[in-house]
Amino acid sequence: MTTKASPSPLAQQMLTLAKEARTAGRALSLASREQKDAALSYAAEELTARKDQLEKANAEDLARGKANGMPAPMLDRLKLDGKVLARLAEGLKQVVSLSDPVGQEILRSVRPNGLVLRQVRVPIGAILIIFESRPNVTIEAGSLCLKSGNACILRGGSEAASSNAALADVLRAGLVKAGLPAGAVSVPPTTERAAIDELLKLDQYLDLVIPRGGESLIRAVAEKSRIPTIKHYKGVCHVYVHRDADPVLARTLTLNSKLQRVSVCNAAETLLIHKEIAPTLLPDLARELQAQGCELRAEPQAAAILKAAKLPFKPADDSAFFDEYLDKIISVKVVDSLEAATEHIETYGSRHTDTIVTRDPEAGVRFQRLVDSASVFVNASTRLADGFEYGLGAEIGISTDKLHARGPMGLESLTTYKWLGQGNGQVRA
Amino acid sequence: MTTKASPSPLAQQMLTLAKEARTAGRALSLASREQKDAALSYAAEELTARKDQLEKANAEDLARGKANGMPAPMLDRLKLDGKVLARLAEGLKQVVSLSDPVGQEILRSVRPNGLVLRQVRVPIGAILIIFESRPNVTIEAGSLCLKSGNACILRGGSEAASSNAALADVLRAGLVKAGLPAGAVSVPPTTERAAIDELLKLDQYLDLVIPRGGESLIRAVAEKSRIPTIKHYKGVCHVYVHRDADPVLARTLTLNSKLQRVSVCNAAETLLIHKEIAPTLLPDLARELQAQGCELRAEPQAAAILKAAKLPFKPADDSAFFDEYLDKIISVKVVDSLEAATEHIETYGSRHTDTIVTRDPEAGVRFQRLVDSASVFVNASTRLADGFEYGLGAEIGISTDKLHARGPMGLESLTTYKWLGQGNGQVRA
Repeated sequence: MTTKASPSPLAQQMLTLAKEARTAGRALSLASREQKDAALSYAAEELTARKDQLEKANAEDLARGKANGMPAPMLDRLKLDGKVLARLAEGLKQVVSLSDPVGQEILRSVRPNGLVLRQVRVPIGAILIIFESRPNVTIEAGSLCLKSGNACILRGGSEAASSNAALADVLRAGLVKAGLPAGAVSVPPTTERAAIDELLKLDQYLDLVIPRGGESLIRAVAEKSRIPTIKHYKGVCHVYVHRDADPVLARTLTLNSKLQRVSVCNAAETLLIHKEIAPTLLPDLARELQAQGCELRAEPQAAAILKAAKLPFKPADDSAFFDEYLDKIISVKVVDSLEAATEHIETYGSRHTDTIVTRDPEAGVRFQRLVDSASVFVNASTRLADGFEYGLGAEIGISTDKLHARGPMGLESLTTYKWLGQGNGQVRA
Repeated sequence: MTTKASPSPLAQQMLTLAKEARTAGRALSLASREQKDAALSYAAEELTARKDQLEKANAEDLARGKANGMPAPMLDRLKLDGKVLARLAEGLKQVVSLSDPVGQEILRSVRPNGLVLRQVRVPIGAILIIFESRPNVTIEAGSLCLKSGNACILRGGSEAASSNAALADVLRAGLVKAGLPAGAVSVPPTTERAAIDELLKLDQYLDLVIPRGGESLIRAVAEKSRIPTIKHYKGVCHVYVHRDADPVLARTLTLNSKLQRVSVCNAAETLLIHKEIAPTLLPDLARELQAQGCELRAEPQAAAILKAAKLPFKPADDSAFFDEYLDKIISVKVVDSLEAATEHIETYGSRHTDTIVTRDPEAGVRFQRLVDSASVFVNASTRLADGFEYGLGAEIGISTDKLHARGPMGLESLTTYKWLGQGNGQVRA
């Protein structure tokens, strides 16, 4: 006789959490915009009212971080002070002002048999968000899930455990005050890593996982999850300077794409430059980049040009082009043609964002056709691939996946749809 | 020192296949509608021209099936004769007539900085379709992938291996004649089960898996796949007869939903009936169902009514309501309210298709709000949840998932999108 092993206490705890999220999600999915906005507004008030409590919870995380030798920049990212809290409260108010995607009609048609068929946006259900480091994500991601009618389980890094729990409580207080179930926003009561593994099995209750953080975290989640995942491994973004590029535009866009903010996924990591323009333009671009402290990693052809111009660089081996530096470093390669550039992007890129600098509209169209990335630009900085820049109002993340959502994900990405049919006796013949 | 085990010959073979699909998919994604339609038209011609070859390949499968004791209905489903081939050729011509979703603009906006932003449909890439039994799927699924610019690997059941390979060759011949790569449609050269496991690891080359078949096949694929999956476990569809239902409509819709075709996923499996109307209406409905050979499985309250009316039934225990009979059997339950009906559907349903019979528009709206299924109808047969009935032109499958595609999936479901930005020097401030 075989008996099924009874679930571990941890598994049982996560199952309870997921079931609660599902039940609360059902209630939240039926809430009106007014009710959801009230919850968000109350939460914004609570954020201010609970300043001392939140700073105290945060102080616990900071003390633990210091004791564990956390480096200063990480401690800085972890810190919740009056300024950060005010910004989070402001963010909540912005989410209130966003229109509610739930109930939007995507399609309406009257079928030949008279059935009135509508495709209508509805919330996805219960969403698990797994993230690292900054506790802000608790409020930012939690508020977008709430606005779009989805329950969420927010699993942040253990280093921010007290702050995350306290911030989630702010959202829960807002929900309760608005007559909505607190279970629509929750934080697992344990920071054990195994809790994530248990949650990732619960595809019967959880509808979507969004992992946000480093590539290794995301790969581990994607590998283990039985729940559909929307992810973003990395941003190896390219600026391709075509043979006919305006030098001033090439400089502006290369500098902005690479250096406006280096630690983000839509910053450029690689400069591709056409062989006809490289000998004259590359030294100029290199000087400008280096003047701003950016290091160059050049493959042999680019290296030869830089060497001739007496400019410093490090050699780039093949693997360098896969790297997401997130730093003041750029890989440089001379290419023979637009097609060579797009092939390079196909091989080394991460399908995030790539841009061409050209004066030739046909080259632009060709580049946009050939590059299979979430965002493909002509004469614009890669840094523009962003939910706010796209007018989505907010961003739950950026997807380099192709299913469901691609590129910057706004509130709509947190919805699915139902087909609603209104008939008067229609049958299948 | 650790060394990485070299891949098995099978793994190597599947890797080659997946890489070919990806490369061919890139080429196909850039093909014009004319070119893709030409490939489909040529394939339709080949289907007729190769009749003898195809029947010979099919005869091999039939002989093997007979030798293995395959039951007659399954042999029948396996058979490719002139009539089936003519219908498949007709199907190809219909796919030619469908409009091409690739290149369609979903959204266009001019950002405040002047960037012209467009969200444009593009093919997904390379799709793995795993199916059972009927070789028709090779042509039907293959042609929809081709039309939407996606490469596909078609892995049918081993019992139809020769037929599937021969049919895929028809599509490949069409592709080549139209100047497109044959690799855009392929069939693994082995029927080993382990080949599927190898393919499901190749998320670097394959973008989507669509398993079609029995629940156990689909669960096995979903469990193992590292590639995003769109699936459809089962169709436990409900007809709910509200307290105020028109008896004639209730009869028409119950009979059509249950019996118009019993072996399909959008056939009803459960009849829910309001307690106020059940005593008078249920015996009538039962008589009509039984007159057409349908067996009833009743929970105690329904059983009492049937017993009083001296009608035969089998008792339904709780687990019966999870069953997808795909046969002339229906579960019956008396419910206290509309809410009790929707709760039953939430607990036992498969989120496929559910319908309410009511004269009260408010009850209809409430049912559509509360039921979280892909298709929710008012006064219409569940059998209408279908790609053709919805005007999608064709159907690659039905999704009971919530991400990417829900309900009947047409050509659009085989696309994703790119964000294309046209600028003149826009940067991030």
